[in-house]
Amino acid sequence: MAIEGKSEGTVSRRLRLGMVGGGQGAFIGAVHRLAARMDDRYELVAGALSADPARARASAAELHIAPDRAYATFEEMAAAEGARPDGIDVVSIVTPNHLHAAPSIAFLRAGIHVICDKPLTSTLEDALALERAVADSGLFFGFTHNYTAHPMIRQAREMVAAGEVGDIRVVQVEYPQDWLATKLEATGQKQADWRTDPARSGAGGSLGDIGTHAFNLAEFVSGLTADSVAADLTSFVEGRLLDDNAAMLLRFAGGARGMLWASQVAVGNENAVRLRVYGTKAGLDWHQEDPNYLTFTRLGQPRQILTRAGEGATPGNSHAARVPAGHPEGYLEAFGQIYRDSAEQITARLEKRAPNPASLLVPGIAEGVRGMKFITAAVASSRAGSGWTKV
Amino acid sequence: MAIEGKSEGTVSRRLRLGMVGGGQGAFIGAVHRLAARMDDRYELVAGALSADPARARASAAELHIAPDRAYATFEEMAAAEGARPDGIDVVSIVTPNHLHAAPSIAFLRAGIHVICDKPLTSTLEDALALERAVADSGLFFGFTHNYTAHPMIRQAREMVAAGEVGDIRVVQVEYPQDWLATKLEATGQKQADWRTDPARSGAGGSLGDIGTHAFNLAEFVSGLTADSVAADLTSFVEGRLLDDNAAMLLRFAGGARGMLWASQVAVGNENAVRLRVYGTKAGLDWHQEDPNYLTFTRLGQPRQILTRAGEGATPGNSHAARVPAGHPEGYLEAFGQIYRDSAEQITARLEKRAPNPASLLVPGIAEGVRGMKFITAAVASSRAGSGWTKV
Amino acid sequence: MAIEGKSEGTVSRRLRLGMVGGGQGAFIGAVHRLAARMDDRYELVAGALSADPARARASAAELHIAPDRAYATFEEMAAAEGARPDGIDVVSIVTPNHLHAAPSIAFLRAGIHVICDKPLTSTLEDALALERAVADSGLFFGFTHNYTAHPMIRQAREMVAAGEVGDIRVVQVEYPQDWLATKLEATGQKQADWRTDPARSGAGGSLGDIGTHAFNLAEFVSGLTADSVAADLTSFVEGRLLDDNAAMLLRFAGGARGMLWASQVAVGNENAVRLRVYGTKAGLDWHQEDPNYLTFTRLGQPRQILTRAGEGATPGNSHAARVPAGHPEGYLEAFGQIYRDSAEQITARLEKRAPNPASLLVPGIAEGVRGMKFITAAVASSRAGSGWTKV
Amino acid sequence: MAIEGKSEGTVSRRLRLGMVGGGQGAFIGAVHRLAARMDDRYELVAGALSADPARARASAAELHIAPDRAYATFEEMAAAEGARPDGIDVVSIVTPNHLHAAPSIAFLRAGIHVICDKPLTSTLEDALALERAVADSGLFFGFTHNYTAHPMIRQAREMVAAGEVGDIRVVQVEYPQDWLATKLEATGQKQADWRTDPARSGAGGSLGDIGTHAFNLAEFVSGLTADSVAADLTSFVEGRLLDDNAAMLLRFAGGARGMLWASQVAVGNENAVRLRVYGTKAGLDWHQEDPNYLTFTRLGQPRQILTRAGEGATPGNSHAARVPAGHPEGYLEAFGQIYRDSAEQITARLEKRAPNPASLLVPGIAEGVRGMKFITAAVASSRAGSGWTKV
Repeated sequence: MAIEGKSEGTVSRRLRLGMVGGGQGAFIGAVHRLAARMDDRYELVAGALSADPARARASAAELHIAPDRAYATFEEMAAAEGARPDGIDVVSIVTPNHLHAAPSIAFLRAGIHVICDKPLTSTLEDALALERAVADSGLFFGFTHNYTAHPMIRQAREMVAAGEVGDIRVVQVEYPQDWLATKLEATGQKQADWRTDPARSGAGGSLGDIGTHAFNLAEFVSGLTADSVAADLTSFVEGRLLDDNAAMLLRFAGGARGMLWASQVAVGNENAVRLRVYGTKAGLDWHQEDPNYLTFTRLGQPRQILTRAGEGATPGNSHAARVPAGHPEGYLEAFGQIYRDSAEQITARLEKRAPNPASLLVPGIAEGVRGMKFITAAVASSRAGSGWTKV
Repeated sequence: MAIEGKSEGTVSRRLRLGMVGGGQGAFIGAVHRLAARMDDRYELVAGALSADPARARASAAELHIAPDRAYATFEEMAAAEGARPDGIDVVSIVTPNHLHAAPSIAFLRAGIHVICDKPLTSTLEDALALERAVADSGLFFGFTHNYTAHPMIRQAREMVAAGEVGDIRVVQVEYPQDWLATKLEATGQKQADWRTDPARSGAGGSLGDIGTHAFNLAEFVSGLTADSVAADLTSFVEGRLLDDNAAMLLRFAGGARGMLWASQVAVGNENAVRLRVYGTKAGLDWHQEDPNYLTFTRLGQPRQILTRAGEGATPGNSHAARVPAGHPEGYLEAFGQIYRDSAEQITARLEKRAPNPASLLVPGIAEGVRGMKFITAAVASSRAGSGWTKV
Repeated sequence: MAIEGKSEGTVSRRLRLGMVGGGQGAFIGAVHRLAARMDDRYELVAGALSADPARARASAAELHIAPDRAYATFEEMAAAEGARPDGIDVVSIVTPNHLHAAPSIAFLRAGIHVICDKPLTSTLEDALALERAVADSGLFFGFTHNYTAHPMIRQAREMVAAGEVGDIRVVQVEYPQDWLATKLEATGQKQADWRTDPARSGAGGSLGDIGTHAFNLAEFVSGLTADSVAADLTSFVEGRLLDDNAAMLLRFAGGARGMLWASQVAVGNENAVRLRVYGTKAGLDWHQEDPNYLTFTRLGQPRQILTRAGEGATPGNSHAARVPAGHPEGYLEAFGQIYRDSAEQITARLEKRAPNPASLLVPGIAEGVRGMKFITAAVASSRAGSGWTKV
Repeated sequence: MAIEGKSEGTVSRRLRLGMVGGGQGAFIGAVHRLAARMDDRYELVAGALSADPARARASAAELHIAPDRAYATFEEMAAAEGARPDGIDVVSIVTPNHLHAAPSIAFLRAGIHVICDKPLTSTLEDALALERAVADSGLFFGFTHNYTAHPMIRQAREMVAAGEVGDIRVVQVEYPQDWLATKLEATGQKQADWRTDPARSGAGGSLGDIGTHAFNLAEFVSGLTADSVAADLTSFVEGRLLDDNAAMLLRFAGGARGMLWASQVAVGNENAVRLRVYGTKAGLDWHQEDPNYLTFTRLGQPRQILTRAGEGATPGNSHAARVPAGHPEGYLEAFGQIYRDSAEQITARLEKRAPNPASLLVPGIAEGVRGMKFITAAVASSRAGSGWTKV
């Protein structure tokens, strides 16, 4: 409890933020907006919020966006905002997967920084094109693998990097849900509809929606690179076109082994992300649903329960925490941390100064491309009898 | 997961918010601001943020408050904002306890709604004066017993009210911490300093700081009124002037019994608020540190784990939730819910319409006065050999 | 897992055991017998198992007791066994509370060691008479406060005694159940029947049945002596003659404070014994339903989860464990440990050698008398308006 | 708590038990003996406890075995006991894996029932030979997959069989430990020594020692038959000859999928067996270290925590429980249940009556052979690039 309040910072300006997607009826757009507001580093001033013009206008009004900055298309928005002297500094892309690449590229070309939802795109081709566009632009590209921004995940990564876990042998990661245990897409439920549609989601179902989070988390914390996967993807719900259960073995460069499980039919699970990392010296265990704890056990010592902003907090834990230990933070705060750290990086560019190094952990285009390679490899492996396939 | 995104609402305006206290180095002020931003229903435009003028100015600048609305004193601020056509709609009072009554009264008299931190005041006299001022003003007075705004607490209250727990027999509530296990106030730590000082905190130490939260939660969920207490207050740390451990028995009108424990010397506890309610038909159990769960057991049935926005969620649970089940919300979201519901009530007054009934659960002056009576009764009981004392 | 098997020991003989009570339909008698068998230190050879002669005979046959050692009354049994050259070494008294004193005294006078169930007796007078009989006899008197024999409780006690917790400030103990939430005694249920009858149970209901366990555990682990209690006893179920909910404040010699709660109407609780001890240096937390763990937190350090036979196990933990860490032991093993340690003490007397010091922690007549004083004080306090009453 | 005591039963005789292996310094032998004593259905009267004659004699004396029934070899013991009119009814085989087949066969040929530790043998050939011997003998052959005898596992199996889980889609099972995270076998530690030696353990390391438990549990509860495995076995500790980490994908007949992980290098794990079963209608989750709970969630309903002997207990749960809910049972009680159910089956044969059907769940030769096929398939798959391999 002995933490003094954090000031919101000393920046002289809030970043001007635009949004593509996220109109009425969407889910993740509202999360991005709340995340952007949390630490007062952004002001939402423009949007192309929906492909439906009426919905786009209504959504913008609700969000206090001026009518002249409520655009019908992202192309129009990128052009107009890129030309305004008070144009947006950064845009959030919160559309379905197949509509990530084109707007991202359009805004980058207009000189506007980008924060993009995951997975990166619906095809590897799109991902590689976007990768080139980011490189060409020299601009900031943030990628919302939000789970990486939990204070205890930051601490886990730091402890691994500091050698406290020793040489890593085993990485176990899983992300079970149950919301697609029945054919929800047949009911017209909007979230289920596009996520189970290969044209909009890409080649992965649970694999792309949640498996990429799990994969990213495993690499983020372990600091290891997955070399190959042996995957078994299944569509349990009759008539479903994409996998709703993805099981796989992992081999990491350097010899570590792992397992990854993503499921949307595991009845009784809400968003039960769990990551475990075992090395020669210690083991780590983290659950997303109880994110303020990290179980850490040194070989031959009693188990410890480390807490957010608690005793033994590393700098990265403290950096990503807002309130004292024992007052739980959660999903929105971690998402907000992605936005806070992105704001710091973008502002530093605008102010031509070095950013706070602690802000540099925001995932970016590399992690986005990596996720697409992961999806591609897992699908290929599963089709080829679960043989080992390079990521 | 099958929750569609919530729109931030359809209001045509954000409320103009002012703040008294909460400058650099403070703790709870930053929490109030984040809570106010969370759902985009407020814009912070004025403040008397510190008794130190330089700090007040610097804090205001950091918060994007215009220099002419960065006031040196709350009196000046109440006068000026009350007179402006674009003056603030509502003010947040986030000063130490002994400075709650005077500014609250000043703003109420200036026709400005108030949201005030807890406990209400440092003396019962101040509390009663403030109670009269609220009544005279006819304005909204919100009181940040933030734990009441957790979705699972709202659900617990609704289940009790619906008779699902039956006639309540026993209420057990506790709030252990350990941050004052040593004489932290002697180190100059600002939060410890005023909280252990009777002149600024009032007659209760742990009793006022956290015991009032526990007491409020017990009454809020059970719907019962505590009739009397038999208390034993202790100051374990040598030289400490206020209690750092408060143990008491409770008797409720209607015959229910209870126990309340608040401690700031219970080593190993961060903010381990726990409430249990047992009736003739069922029992409830909730922990603040894992707030997305509510354990509910019907007599003769297996235990159930109810979740925020999960299966079996009541309307009040859904109302207070922002993201789907399994993506944890926490302390800041509950605090934000106090602000969101307050915004709805204030806006409804401004728009001369009825508020959403779900917003009416925000604690107010009655709960504030009740807390002061609780402190007064517990101190009196403890001094009188723990005899039963009317609340 | 790296624990080598424990040999059952090197004793040259099993103790000859008799039993009073515990015939067909009883509960705790079967637990005592299983506990006695667990470590192969006893052989059950005689019994007065029921007041009903036919049931006594049938029960004896079922237990492989020879017909000539199946007695109709404990008086007859004490006389006969005391006179046999191969008479029992020790007798277990497992009758309802009001029938503990007389048989215990009879067997002690016959030169036979005694292991007695709790609470000690139904009246303080009986308890004091039994205390004198034990003293006069010079024999072993073991008292089955079984929870004290859990490895993690033994470790907790050792850690406190070694100063690892520092000076104790607060002791919180509770034992909630729900099996008497309705008027079960009215259904003829045998366990409920005598436990709610003052003539057989004594002055305490939940107080005697489970409150004494909680009280004993608090003193056993803390090493402190409770000085006085301020109690509020309630009978919630209509027509019940004894308390089914007991709430009280505790003051310990030396200044520590505490709270004790026992309830048999707390819906959703099975046998949720919990003990917490907080000192100047650390805090401890133990739950009976998950007995293989002990949470231990040093001030300013992360929380640790200590385990039975696990890393950091103290000698007392290891002494009371039978299988490696991670293979849970429970209620029966702790009960068995009372029997194992009692066997060591009795055998040492028979062999005229010093017992293993680790076996000396078995509660005895002092703890039994202490429990009766606790019941007496709590009942007196509750009747006198919850005033502080000496234990 | 409202359970009346269980009588130990009405059998007219205890079974005469012998033991092969389990002398001083062994681990699992003592567990078998305690399990056999627990419910008073056996009397240990003969043994060939060690290959070292002095140790065999000393061990026998310690266990109250008469000198003429303390044998130097199992061959001698089988011959002598088979010939005695009061010879043993049943023998427990508790030697290392490579010494299971020969003694089992010898005793079966001598007309003596067998209870054998797991895994069945060290080679598939031995397993098949033993399978024939069991068939030829017509005798009882019990196999100590002890985890199957936990009350909550019995309940899980019953719920699956009753269709409460629906059609099973996914089975996740794991058994992580950490006791072999270093090269313990190099220190002379007896348990590590033989378990890491292919000559005594067979082709599987962690696979045989704990993976077979996990595999058996998955099939036991799900009622499904694993069709094939895709495995990746690793020896992380340098110089270790057998796997210490086994990861694999599973495909079940009928289309269900699964994952199995066994590890002896997962730092921070003691014996963290966990089984999860997901079907179209519900999901189940069980942890061996907290075995008195079973998490059960019906699709679209709140999660339930079912307990041993608690509300909603199935007949198999009640059958395998000894004490009321809330008084935890554990590893030894489950092991004891294997012995109790075996006793019932053997006694029924001796008494020429039908056994209690609830006792028939004891694993036997089929489960033993199945485990050997599992080891064989997993090793073959891992050697062949993790290709799918028939079990």
